Amino acid sequence: MGYVRAMIVFGIDPGSTVTGWGAITAERGRLRLVDGGCVRTDASWPMEERLLRIHDGLLEALERIAPEHVAIEAIFRHKSSESALRLGQARGVALLAVGRRGLRAAEYNAMTVKKTVGATGAADKEQVARVVRMLLGELPKGPADTTDALAIAITHHAHLRNGLR
Amino acid sequence: MGYVRAMIVFGIDPGSTVTGWGAITAERGRLRLVDGGCVRTDASWPMEERLLRIHDGLLEALERIAPEHVAIEAIFRHKSSESALRLGQARGVALLAVGRRGLRAAEYNAMTVKKTVGATGAADKEQVARVVRMLLGELPKGPADTTDALAIAITHHAHLRNGLR
Repeated sequence: MGYVRAMIVFGIDPGSTVTGWGAITAERGRLRLVDGGCVRTDASWPMEERLLRIHDGLLEALERIAPEHVAIEAIFRHKSSESALRLGQARGVALLAVGRRGLRAAEYNAMTVKKTVGATGAADKEQVARVVRMLLGELPKGPADTTDALAIAITHHAHLRNGLR
Repeated sequence: MGYVRAMIVFGIDPGSTVTGWGAITAERGRLRLVDGGCVRTDASWPMEERLLRIHDGLLEALERIAPEHVAIEAIFRHKSSESALRLGQARGVALLAVGRRGLRAAEYNAMTVKKTVGATGAADKEQVARVVRMLLGELPKGPADTTDALAIAITHHAHLRNGLR
């Protein structure tokens, strides 16, 4: 029998300044970190440059890691339509990179991620980060956005495993 | 002396269902239609597919027409953050296509377009369309989104000519 690689789940937490990404897999029932990182842009750059960086950075990670599944944070309400529009632009080029790989991104809102990873919808960011570190045994260096992306990947993995989707 | 092509201005009216585009140029002080069209997507398609279609359709038009200048509709307020997010996704992949060509998109809000093309901020869509047709001598077949994109291109042309930007 040939080698069958374990399924890799890739999570994305999009943002115009920092887009976090993280990939996990499962080995003998245990979650393992594959890789994680982020794409940073500078608010002083033209938006076209920022979107190119986000798209190309994510596509590079998707091509290198070649995940079977992708999940992204769903955002239904936002503090202002201006920030929703700006976030939408970053999210649009993230979804484009996913589509370019022939993949689809499952969507989870922050509450579902907190309930799945933090066990309760009231979990704060630090609690979620602690559970992510406990489940993976480690956290990659990087900003909170990378941890958030890993939490989204873990959420999708749980839903795939439990057939909840 | 070699041939110097007249400057082409390319306008974009982004949307997740219909993204209009239109290109104009000036010959002996008169505006002329270069080409116009739109990229349509179906609401039943996965968003990744819709964004791929918008990006690739716009990039194809930008590569074929090779404009010197690009302008896009600016949106600062929107009826809901959900629709702002969806519009932002379409706008993000449109700006990505512009950035891929090494160009920047100037931004004009609807009021500026109405004032420039319709002579008054109170102009309705039909008035703007009539002026666009009058200025160009013709309108390409297509939805209102194509006419709106041409109005944005005409606005940018006027601002470039008058040194208003």
